[in-house]
Amino acid sequence: MTDCPSSPADRLDGVLATLRENGLAARISTSPSVLEAHSHGEAMDAARLPAAVVFAESTDDVATVLRACHAHRVPVVAFGAGTSVEGHVTPAEHGISLDLSGMTDIVELNAEDLDCRVQAGLTRQALNAQIRDTGLFFPVDPGGEATLGGMCATRASGTAAVRYGTMKENVLGLTVVLATGEVIRTGGRVRKSSTGYDLTSLFIGSEGTLGIVTEVQLRLHGRPETISAAVCQFSNLNDAVQTAIEIIQCGIPISRVELLDDVQMAASIRYSGLTGYEPLTTLFFEFAGAPAAVAEQVTQTEAIALSNNGLSFAWADTAEERTRLWKARHDAFWAAKAIEPTARVISTDCIVPISRLAELIAGVREDIARSGLRVPLLGHVGDGNFHALIITDHTPEGYARALDLDRKIVFRALALGGSCSGEHGVGMGKLEFLETEHGDGTLSVMRALKNTMDPHHILNPGKLLPPGRVYQG
Amino acid sequence: MTDCPSSPADRLDGVLATLRENGLAARISTSPSVLEAHSHGEAMDAARLPAAVVFAESTDDVATVLRACHAHRVPVVAFGAGTSVEGHVTPAEHGISLDLSGMTDIVELNAEDLDCRVQAGLTRQALNAQIRDTGLFFPVDPGGEATLGGMCATRASGTAAVRYGTMKENVLGLTVVLATGEVIRTGGRVRKSSTGYDLTSLFIGSEGTLGIVTEVQLRLHGRPETISAAVCQFSNLNDAVQTAIEIIQCGIPISRVELLDDVQMAASIRYSGLTGYEPLTTLFFEFAGAPAAVAEQVTQTEAIALSNNGLSFAWADTAEERTRLWKARHDAFWAAKAIEPTARVISTDCIVPISRLAELIAGVREDIARSGLRVPLLGHVGDGNFHALIITDHTPEGYARALDLDRKIVFRALALGGSCSGEHGVGMGKLEFLETEHGDGTLSVMRALKNTMDPHHILNPGKLLPPGRVYQG
Repeated sequence: MTDCPSSPADRLDGVLATLRENGLAARISTSPSVLEAHSHGEAMDAARLPAAVVFAESTDDVATVLRACHAHRVPVVAFGAGTSVEGHVTPAEHGISLDLSGMTDIVELNAEDLDCRVQAGLTRQALNAQIRDTGLFFPVDPGGEATLGGMCATRASGTAAVRYGTMKENVLGLTVVLATGEVIRTGGRVRKSSTGYDLTSLFIGSEGTLGIVTEVQLRLHGRPETISAAVCQFSNLNDAVQTAIEIIQCGIPISRVELLDDVQMAASIRYSGLTGYEPLTTLFFEFAGAPAAVAEQVTQTEAIALSNNGLSFAWADTAEERTRLWKARHDAFWAAKAIEPTARVISTDCIVPISRLAELIAGVREDIARSGLRVPLLGHVGDGNFHALIITDHTPEGYARALDLDRKIVFRALALGGSCSGEHGVGMGKLEFLETEHGDGTLSVMRALKNTMDPHHILNPGKLLPPGRVYQG
Repeated sequence: MTDCPSSPADRLDGVLATLRENGLAARISTSPSVLEAHSHGEAMDAARLPAAVVFAESTDDVATVLRACHAHRVPVVAFGAGTSVEGHVTPAEHGISLDLSGMTDIVELNAEDLDCRVQAGLTRQALNAQIRDTGLFFPVDPGGEATLGGMCATRASGTAAVRYGTMKENVLGLTVVLATGEVIRTGGRVRKSSTGYDLTSLFIGSEGTLGIVTEVQLRLHGRPETISAAVCQFSNLNDAVQTAIEIIQCGIPISRVELLDDVQMAASIRYSGLTGYEPLTTLFFEFAGAPAAVAEQVTQTEAIALSNNGLSFAWADTAEERTRLWKARHDAFWAAKAIEPTARVISTDCIVPISRLAELIAGVREDIARSGLRVPLLGHVGDGNFHALIITDHTPEGYARALDLDRKIVFRALALGGSCSGEHGVGMGKLEFLETEHGDGTLSVMRALKNTMDPHHILNPGKLLPPGRVYQG
C-alpha cells in the first residue's frame, strides 16, 4: 500500500463516493446492526466490524465495487450466508463486506443436460426446492444453509461426497470478478474439456482471495428412483471402519456412510429419541438407485458389516424410519451441544486415507482422555473425513484447551498423510498448519498465484495463506 | 531472452555441460534416429528435431535438466509415449526433448485406500497389468498407449469418462518440477481437501507449460463383479442421441455409451467382421457392477432405447461376444483408415452439451457433404464428445481441405456452447480457437499464470496459449 499514502478513512470515502456516483448509494449500509451481522461467520472468535457493507444484486454491482476497491486499495470480503466456521468472512481492517445474499436467481436451467447456472447467493436448499419438478437435484450438502458461492469458496462437501463428489466435481464453470473489477467466465457447460488451464478449479477453494464468484454453472443429478437406509452397530471402532473400507473397495455405490462414535451415539439417542439403539459405535448407511440395485447394495453391505462383527443390521425400508434416522444424523451437532446446553462446540475437520482412520481415532481418543474434555466424534467415513465436536466453555481458557486439542488432532492426521481440513477450509483457523501439510515450495507457488491475481491484496487478505516465500520463476 | 544474448548453440552447450557435470552424460542423445523419434507425436505435420534428447530416470534428473535449462534459457518439452495428436510434444526451436518413458515405477500401492503413486512414464495398460491381482484398476482409457504423465498433461479421458470421470477426477496429487528446477508436491492421498489452491488441477491439462509432472497419485477403482454389453441400432441419429440423454437423466450408472454413425458402422462391419448388424447409426453400451444392478440397468436401457425407436436391442451376455463388440469399437479408427488404406485420417474432438449433439451432428453432416470428403463419426455420446474421422490424402491440398472441415466443425460446436477439445488438448492444433472459446479476459489470466510460473517461457513454449494480453492485477 506504499503507493497509496492516504488514510484508511479517506480510501473508504473514495470507494463509497465512487459507488454513489455509480448509482449504488442505496446498497451501502453502515448501520451498527448490519455491520455486526457481517463481522463474523459461525463459531469463530475473531470478529471484526467492516467499515461498510455493500449489497450486490448483480455481477455488474460486484465489478463496480471491486473496481473502486482496487483503485483505492480497500480490502473486500464476500459475504453470503455467514456459515463459515473458520473465520473466512471476517472483514479485514478498514475493509468492506460485500454481501451477495440477494443474488439468488437461477439464471438458466437445462434439464436435458443436467446443468443449471445460478447466482452465487442462492442456497443449495433453495435451489433444490425450485428444481424439484424437474426430477433433478444438486447433491453437495454441507451442514449449514450455505450459499452456492460460499460453497465454491470453501470447496465444500458433506455426507454425499462419497457418491457424488465435492464442489470440485460438481461445478462446470464460473463467472468471476477479478481484483481489478474485470469479469471473466471460466469453464462452460460441457462435461469435460481439454482447452487450457483449469481456472474453475483454481477459483474453487480459493476463499475469495483470487476473485469473487458471482455465478456458478452446476452439474445436476437425477433423483434416485429408490432410497433406502440402514444402521449397524459395532462394539469397536476398527470393525466399523473396516466395514466402510470394504464397502468402498467392493465398489458398492453407496450414497452415504456416516460414523457416530459411542459418545456421539449416546448424545443422539437422547437428543433425537433414537429408541432401539445402544450407545455404541454406529454406521448409518444410505443407498440410492433403481430398486434391484438398492436391494443388492443393502444385501452386500449387510454381509460385509456382519463379517466385520457388526452386532445388528437394521434396514429402514420405510420413508418415515429413514427420515427419522437421517434427521438424527443431521442433528448430531445439536445433540452434541445438548450434552452441555450452555457450552460451546468447536468442530475439527481432519481427513486421512481411510486405512489410517481407525489408527487416527484411537490416538485422538487418548488426546481426548488427557484433555478432560467431552468430545463426540462423527465422520464421513467413506472419505476418511471426521469431525471431533469439542465441547468446552465460553472462557478464554476453555477456548484455549479446545484449540490445544484441535492442534493435537491435526498433527496426528498430518503425520498419517492427512489434511487439516476435508471441507471447512483454511480461513484464519487453519493457517498455522498449511506449511506442515503442503511444504514451503508448494505454498510459495500459491503465494505467487495470489500476487499475480491480486497484487495489492485487496481480496480477503489474511485468509488461506500464511505469509512466507513467494515462488519466482 | 534479452538477458541472454548468447547464441542458441552456446546455450545448449551450457545445458549439456551442466548435465555432464551432474553425471547425466550417458542420458544425452543427439543420434539422428533418436532426434527424429522425438520430433513429433502422432498425426501432426509440424515436426521439428530437438537439439538433444535427455532420458530422465528420476525426479532428480528432471530437476537437474530444468535447473540447467532455466539457467541457460533453453526450452524443454517432456516426452512420454508420443501419442499426442495436437503437436504437444514437438520440440521448440533449439530445444531439448526430455524423455520420461523410462520412469515406469509404481512408487507405492495402497490397495486398502484405492490409490497408488506412479512415475509419469508408466502407461495405463502397464499399470493395470501390474495391479491386476489387487482387484483394482485405473479406468481412464484414451485411445493410444499413453503414459500417465502425458494423460495428466492433456487432461485425457476416453470411453469410461461417463462413469469414472477424466484425469481431473482421478488424480489426487502430483510431484511437479517447476521451471526453476524446484520440486513440489501438490494434493496428497486424501479423497478431498479444502486447504489452499487446487494446484493439482492447475497442472492437469497444462500440457507441460507450467511444470513437468514426474509422479502421479492416482485413484483406483474396484473391478466390477459383472460386466455386460449391448448394442442398439437406430434409423436416425436423433433417436440414438435422445436415448443417451434419457439414460443419463435417469441416473443409470452406465459405464460406457458410444455412438457410431452409419458411415463408421459400415466401416466397422467390414473391418471387424461384425456380422448381424446393419450399416446404421448404432449405440454400444457397457454396464458394470453387481449382477442384479447390471441386469436392471440393461432392462432400463432397453426400454429407453426401444421407446426411442431403437430397431433392435442385442444383449451380449457372454465375455466373448462383449469382447468382440468392444474390440470393434476400439478398432473404429483403424476401420475408418481401412476405408482408404493409403489415406490419412485426421480426428476432430469437439464436445457440446449433450442436448445439442444431434443438432451439431446434423450441421456437421452438411459440412461433410459439401467437403466431398468421407468422414465417419463416432462419439463418447454420454459426454457430448465426438470425433469426426476425416479421411483425406497426403497432399498439402488434402490436408488443407481436412483442416478447413475441422474448423467448420469447431465453430459449429463453439456456437452451441461447446469446446474445441473434449480430450485431445490444445497443443498447436487448437490454438486458433481458444479466444473464441474462452474470451480475451480468461486467456489473459491464463497468460498471467504462465508468466508467473515460467517467466522465461522455457516450458513447452508455443503450446496451449496463443499470444495476447496478460492480466495485470
